[in-house]
This record gives sequence, C-alpha cells and structure tokens, in this order.
Amino acid sequence: MADLIIQTYQEILQTNGEIELIDLTNKVMNYLAESKITDGTVHISCPGSTSAVITTEFEPGVVKDTKDLLNKLIPKGIGYEHDKIDNNAHSHLRASFLGANQTIPIKENRLLLGTWQQIVFVELDVRPRTRTVIFQFMGIIK
Amino acid sequence: MADLIIQTYQEILQTNGEIELIDLTNKVMNYLAESKITDGTVHISCPGSTSAVITTEFEPGVVKDTKDLLNKLIPKGIGYEHDKIDNNAHSHLRASFLGANQTIPIKENRLLLGTWQQIVFVELDVRPRTRTVIFQFMGIIK
Amino acid sequence: MADLIIQTYQEILQTNGEIELIDLTNKVMNYLAESKITDGTVHISCPGSTSAVITTEFEPGVVKDTKDLLNKLIPKGIGYEHDKIDNNAHSHLRASFLGANQTIPIKENRLLLGTWQQIVFVELDVRPRTRTVIFQFMGIIK
Repeated sequence: MADLIIQTYQEILQTNGEIELIDLTNKVMNYLAESKITDGTVHISCPGSTSAVITTEFEPGVVKDTKDLLNKLIPKGIGYEHDKIDNNAHSHLRASFLGANQTIPIKENRLLLGTWQQIVFVELDVRPRTRTVIFQFMGIIK
Repeated sequence: MADLIIQTYQEILQTNGEIELIDLTNKVMNYLAESKITDGTVHISCPGSTSAVITTEFEPGVVKDTKDLLNKLIPKGIGYEHDKIDNNAHSHLRASFLGANQTIPIKENRLLLGTWQQIVFVELDVRPRTRTVIFQFMGIIK
Repeated sequence: MADLIIQTYQEILQTNGEIELIDLTNKVMNYLAESKITDGTVHISCPGSTSAVITTEFEPGVVKDTKDLLNKLIPKGIGYEHDKIDNNAHSHLRASFLGANQTIPIKENRLLLGTWQQIVFVELDVRPRTRTVIFQFMGIIK
C-alpha cells in the first residue's frame, strides 16, 4: 500500500458579520489538486464557536432562506443568559446546531460532492471577524 | 505499524421522495467485514444537498417523530426564495440542519455504535431519486 | 512519510440525565499528549442514540441557553409516537439534530480549536446513564 499523506492548509477569511455564507469549494479543489491525493478525505473546519461549516447549494435563494430560518428558529437577543456577558448567545447556539466542521471523501483526486452541493463557511458572529479556515487532507496517492 | 488501507464502496438507493429514512447499518457492517480493517473509521456520505446521513434508533416511532419534527421546524413551501426557481427549498434547509455525512469509529473490526443506534440515510427531496451512497473506510489491519 | 498511528481511548462518564453538558477538552488534550501524534485528527463519539458531541463555548450562560433552546425547539412529551414504547422520543430527536460525533484536526501535537471552543458531551436521555466516550486518534508523528 501507499504511504499516508497528511497536508494541512490554512486560509484567512475577512468576514462581514452575521449572517454571511462564503463558498469554499474552489479553494478546497485547488488544494486537492496541489496535494495530489487520489484517495482519502478532506476535513474543513474553523477554530471558534460562532461559525459553522456546512454543505448546501450555494445559490442566492438558498442563502437567503438559510439566513431567514436561523433568524426564525434561533432568534437574536431574546433574553439569553450568555447575552449578560456578551451579545452573541444566538451565534453560539446557531453554530452548535449547524456544526463546526465537515469531512468530504476523495476518490481519483476528486471530491465526492453533488453538482449542486458546495462546501460553505457560515459566519454567525455579530461583528466582522478575521477567520482562519483549516483544510486538512488525509490520504494516499494511488 | 501496519499500512494504511482506504477502501471506497458505493451503493445505489432508489428512494421514494420526502421524507424517507433508510437503514444503512447492515450494508456498512458487510463492507466492514469485506474490508478486513480492524482499526480506523468509516465515513458515510451521499453526494447532493437534499439528503442527510444521521445516526438514530431506526424504530417506526422514532422514524415518524423525525418526519413530524422536520415538517414542524422547517415547513414546506412557506414563501422560500429558492422555491421561485425550484420547489425544494425546505429540502435544502433540512439537509443543512441534519448534516450530510457521518464518521463512525472502528475497533476490532466492529463499528463502535450503540445497540439502538443505526446509520440512517434520510431522503429529503420532494421526488423519488436515484442516490449513490459512499462508504469510505480508512484504517489498518492489526 | 511516517507510519500511520491509530490509538483508541475510552473513558467512562456517569451522567445525571437530561440535559447535562460535560466538557471533554482536557481529556482529549491529555490523550493527544500521550499519543504523541503531531498531524492528524481526533474523532470523539459516544455509542448510543440519546446523546451528542458538539463544540461550543463551555460557559454557564451558553450551557443554560443550549438547554433552553433544546426544550423550546424539541419539547418533551408532546405526543410523540416513540413515547408509546419509551419516554425519550425527544432525546432521540435532539441527538439527531445536534449530531453524535465530532472530528477535530491536529497539527504540531495541538488541537486546532478556538480559545473559546470546547469539545462537549451532551447527555440527552431522561435518566442517569453510564456512558463510554470514544477518543480515536489517527495520524502521524513528524
């Protein structure tokens, strides 16, 4: 069998605060090409507890619907306990429900995603942030 | 140490449209036996943004309750923006909230799942679909 | 390249029933030091379908807000089908929505987490449970 390759890439994002969706798919594809891994996984994450990484169709309608749903299900500033020490309780709660990271399988140096499925970073904090997104590839070159 | 094994299996599912839960646990167990991996992980995913993979107790009551909850929290056709170009905005939103994939640890050639915990595919799209489910094993044979 | 290391650790938790959040971050850091892995991932899971593993800020306010949100979005005992054979339908539903496990990347023998981001076990079942939490490390020593 081939040797294991682990490659960790980082990318800085300047975000605009809540709620912003940023398509990461092309960045992941470029790093995948650079890594030359044919079989394995890529794990996409962002240190912090007020952002999320999801997969969805990155289309203006779905983006708007996602924002509206988060505002409806987990509203801002409705007497949260955490808001007594900060003003982003809803950001933390939304992040927990959406999930902080994603793992995507790789085969033949391609991401096994659907045509209408993108890897999307979600800024949930109340103010613009400088975010470091981590792309970690684990796999082999066949 | 042993060499890394990466095995990717695919399975076609013919689904009936929203909302359908399909138990994948036996398929995963069969592929695990075939792979002979003793220690590692299996990653279960499905390309696309209108389905999900979860773990839950696959029991008719929980299945019904899961459908009812999705219909209540993320209702169909309530003026979504994406519904202007398609009719499955709620399918995308439900998929983002449930999550597109799962990773399960393996030890001694066994899945580390609970007795009442199954790996379940969730069809969320509005029409029957032909789905390709990916089972990717990464690990070693001790 | 270095050889692959897979180390699986288990820890027993005695929980108090719904809803209890338990910070696992220090345990994960201690096992990471013991494993000596510099690059790779740790996967944290708990066999069973009435608990979850999330990342969040482990702060009393966020903990209270998380409990309140779960009670509001997925209330207990509102005529669930599964409650006819058991009394924890809401526990299963909350577990499916929060997610059963987490994968965290490792670099230079450090978890790539934010300062205010902890790895948190969530007991969702209605009674105290003895839980086995799995910490599975996959990676290399550079």
